Amino acid sequence: MSALMGQMMQMPLMISSLIQHAARHSGSTEVVSKRVEGDMHRTTWAELELRSRKMAQVFARLGCQPGDRVATLAWNGYRHVEIYYGSSGSQLVVHTINPRLFPEQIAWIANDAADSVLCFDLSFLPLVEKLAGELKTVKHFVLMTDRAHMPASTTLAKLLCYEDMVAAEDGAYAWPSFDENTACTLCYTSGTTGNPKGAVYSHRSTVLHAYGAALPDAMNCSSRDVILPVVPMFHVNAWGIPYSAPLVGAKLVLPGPHLDGKSMFEMFESERVTFSAGVPTVWLGVLTYMKANQLKFSSLKRTVIGGSACPPAMMKTLQDDFGVEVIHAWGMTELSPLGTLSKLTSRQDHLSKEAQQRLLEKQGRVVYGIDMAIIDDAGKSLPWDGVASGDLVVRGHWVISSYFGKTESPMVTVDGEPGWFPTGDVATIDADGFMQITDRSKDVIKSGGEWISSIDLENIAMAHPAVHEAAAISCRHPKWDERPLLVVVKKPGAETTAADILGFFDGRIAKWQIPDDVVFVDELPHTATGKLQKLKLREMFKDHKLPTA
Amino acid sequence: MSALMGQMMQMPLMISSLIQHAARHSGSTEVVSKRVEGDMHRTTWAELELRSRKMAQVFARLGCQPGDRVATLAWNGYRHVEIYYGSSGSQLVVHTINPRLFPEQIAWIANDAADSVLCFDLSFLPLVEKLAGELKTVKHFVLMTDRAHMPASTTLAKLLCYEDMVAAEDGAYAWPSFDENTACTLCYTSGTTGNPKGAVYSHRSTVLHAYGAALPDAMNCSSRDVILPVVPMFHVNAWGIPYSAPLVGAKLVLPGPHLDGKSMFEMFESERVTFSAGVPTVWLGVLTYMKANQLKFSSLKRTVIGGSACPPAMMKTLQDDFGVEVIHAWGMTELSPLGTLSKLTSRQDHLSKEAQQRLLEKQGRVVYGIDMAIIDDAGKSLPWDGVASGDLVVRGHWVISSYFGKTESPMVTVDGEPGWFPTGDVATIDADGFMQITDRSKDVIKSGGEWISSIDLENIAMAHPAVHEAAAISCRHPKWDERPLLVVVKKPGAETTAADILGFFDGRIAKWQIPDDVVFVDELPHTATGKLQKLKLREMFKDHKLPTA
Repeated sequence: MSALMGQMMQMPLMISSLIQHAARHSGSTEVVSKRVEGDMHRTTWAELELRSRKMAQVFARLGCQPGDRVATLAWNGYRHVEIYYGSSGSQLVVHTINPRLFPEQIAWIANDAADSVLCFDLSFLPLVEKLAGELKTVKHFVLMTDRAHMPASTTLAKLLCYEDMVAAEDGAYAWPSFDENTACTLCYTSGTTGNPKGAVYSHRSTVLHAYGAALPDAMNCSSRDVILPVVPMFHVNAWGIPYSAPLVGAKLVLPGPHLDGKSMFEMFESERVTFSAGVPTVWLGVLTYMKANQLKFSSLKRTVIGGSACPPAMMKTLQDDFGVEVIHAWGMTELSPLGTLSKLTSRQDHLSKEAQQRLLEKQGRVVYGIDMAIIDDAGKSLPWDGVASGDLVVRGHWVISSYFGKTESPMVTVDGEPGWFPTGDVATIDADGFMQITDRSKDVIKSGGEWISSIDLENIAMAHPAVHEAAAISCRHPKWDERPLLVVVKKPGAETTAADILGFFDGRIAKWQIPDDVVFVDELPHTATGKLQKLKLREMFKDHKLPTA
Repeated sequence: MSALMGQMMQMPLMISSLIQHAARHSGSTEVVSKRVEGDMHRTTWAELELRSRKMAQVFARLGCQPGDRVATLAWNGYRHVEIYYGSSGSQLVVHTINPRLFPEQIAWIANDAADSVLCFDLSFLPLVEKLAGELKTVKHFVLMTDRAHMPASTTLAKLLCYEDMVAAEDGAYAWPSFDENTACTLCYTSGTTGNPKGAVYSHRSTVLHAYGAALPDAMNCSSRDVILPVVPMFHVNAWGIPYSAPLVGAKLVLPGPHLDGKSMFEMFESERVTFSAGVPTVWLGVLTYMKANQLKFSSLKRTVIGGSACPPAMMKTLQDDFGVEVIHAWGMTELSPLGTLSKLTSRQDHLSKEAQQRLLEKQGRVVYGIDMAIIDDAGKSLPWDGVASGDLVVRGHWVISSYFGKTESPMVTVDGEPGWFPTGDVATIDADGFMQITDRSKDVIKSGGEWISSIDLENIAMAHPAVHEAAAISCRHPKWDERPLLVVVKKPGAETTAADILGFFDGRIAKWQIPDDVVFVDELPHTATGKLQKLKLREMFKDHKLPTA
């Protein structure tokens, strides 16, 4: 016997419905951008939706066909949002490229994606001029500015002016409806090894992610919020904020290229920002500027911090000294990116403030739509006791199934059940579902069969007053197979010794986990997105002889 | 050229994933029920999920096939939740019947739905015994209790014991995955005319509704909440709370059959309820009890009030005297049911407290997932100026496309675009998207071509100190075609006259809208769900001669 079917309206989950919703129901709510051109620009969701429709017409006029990739090299600004909606909404795919990558990587990615159109901010004209010859598939170069700011001359054969093209369209465009599993966005991961790989989000996955991200236990976005994503729109869609903000009808503030402490603080204040999101380093700049000038926030209530682990000291400063709730989050490009956020539930009400703080420092609990597990090498799931650590795997509505252009599945099996994505992180999960990343699976140090978390060692080292940055890596050892080596960058002018730093570990971690040696360097190797390149570091110190060896 | 497809995990939106999520990530969070048997019962999401799996096994053992309807006659309690998930999760359809309907209506509905199984609380045994002979399709009668509470004798040929059946299963059941457009729930509307009609929700529509309902601008549900739905689970799925609560991992408190002021207040306090939802009448009882005993809430922070319009005075009392945020909401069975909720956005911050209050008294703004419009008789959309009123139409992911067992579409066209559901309400919408119901389209009074809102007249009359209840209906008039007649039930012991009440309208509404006459009655006719039967009232007064005629 066949099942009974629901008798509900059949409407695909479409990206375009987000901006339409904002235009209809929060039409006069502002979208404010600090432009690359230098000034502040103010528009509304209604106006932005109209211009997004005009951009859909522009792409059609340029000859774009369904599925074509529209690449961007752009900061956070309203034109970037218009390209997001104008392309995805008309069945094209927006491909946000990280302009901080090395030029060769940008060219490699643009060619791998086979981008047809490249839209870019004024800041990137020299870069694009340099790269143009290598971009084999790009047919149209669009400078995201108005006629007045177009360059007097350029080496590009044909350079289109964004505002001229928008002005030529009438906006008489009805957003089409199509299969919700159609691609809307292409984002490349900035892997520390090998070539970058693309994640291809669908309209469905993006809309479901937007719902999940706005929930009270996640980013808690509402029509009362003024949201400033510091995280760039080229970094996993600014964690989905350009989708969740119109979903709830929030005011959006887009900071452009200048993310220094002073610029950020002034924008938080002048636009009455209530909620922000970004990586820890940006907050470092903001806090340094505020402390130096004895400033306080007047409207900022909370911030999501992710991308890399937020140092507990920064979390404490933001909360206790500046009254800003810090929501520690974890995600990755392959997860659109939101996986977990650390917020207390009513079950933690009875805990001491210290115990609560320790939970808030973890990566947190999943949002409905994502599930997770930790597994051992045999694919057997491990207990959720906050102690057992294993490879973190996830699945859900906004997790990739394979990479762009590839058919092989990266999935693993958990307790015999296939279809889980291996994150490459090592984590613990406690009984209440709080997950804590203890390491990258490639970075864990295996000493005599026992695992030592490089992150734990780094967190302790970073608390030492003379340490600016630290990395713990594994070093070959004749007896224990691997033992930890700590690589340290001193603070400018600070004096310390290896013995002093090693002594600092006493009482802070089990004795057998204390590094065997410390070496000082002038700087640590980072990727273009600021991630520590541990592989390179291990390479650099592969012949290092530990004093214990 | 074909579009590019996303490369994301393909997982259907399944009802079962909600309870699985709660069991895995909020497993120890409580579900507390006041049982029909008289005691309080405490369980957890983990235990409830296990028992839901056992119920899926029970239904399979009873021979249920995909699509079969499992009917319930039950109050809000954990067993009712288990039936929700056990049936829907195993591809059956839960059909919640309103036990307050007239017995003949219950039989008609059960036969129309062709229910295979009927599960019912102890309170309804006499009703079911009386109806059994008329229930042509029901093969199994399940009493939702344990062995100790089974009746010594019954006229039912075979009466199954819920707890015996649960105990016989091992729970070794894996929730199946199937088409997300499969039916999960059947709810009949309690129309004021004609036979009831069934709405058939799908897994997809229900999960999307659960996301939307939990958003900050909607019910704002989080893992910090203790949620007590006063609205019954037989009344449009208790407005979706049995789905949104596990989605966020909230504690759930289910009040059973006793919804009097004392019982409700005691449960709010003992379980530290933070959020509740129900119709205005329940709050009347709670507030009366609290005032009489000089009580205050210690944990309740907010409540959604819907089902019928919340009297502004009640809203004010709850907010100002008891510190409870009132979220006025509008929905209907055909909308799963959530359509709009009235919450201020940051755009209303500059308004006076009075102007803000007037907005909060409206039915509010749509949640993303629903869109609305107001149209004239020709299907042309009307302006959103807060003044123009027209027929309210909606569309969205959780709106029905047709009624159970029917193929004809009730949809209408807006500005030439088909696919909008006509709600039967007349409303205004303002520039910020706040919708206000001004009348039912059938109840509006058309005086000389101008519309008079019966609801406006009733709200004014209800503010008169001697008026217990009032209804405004149209009465034939030789000159104006229709003129308003006010039908009033006086408060016990109160003295007033028609002239006194008509005088009360002076200065509160335009002169030409003031009723032409007032008649006093002992009671007004209501449906089984408490809705005013205006059709019946118009019938009763069809020969009434207005003094102005």
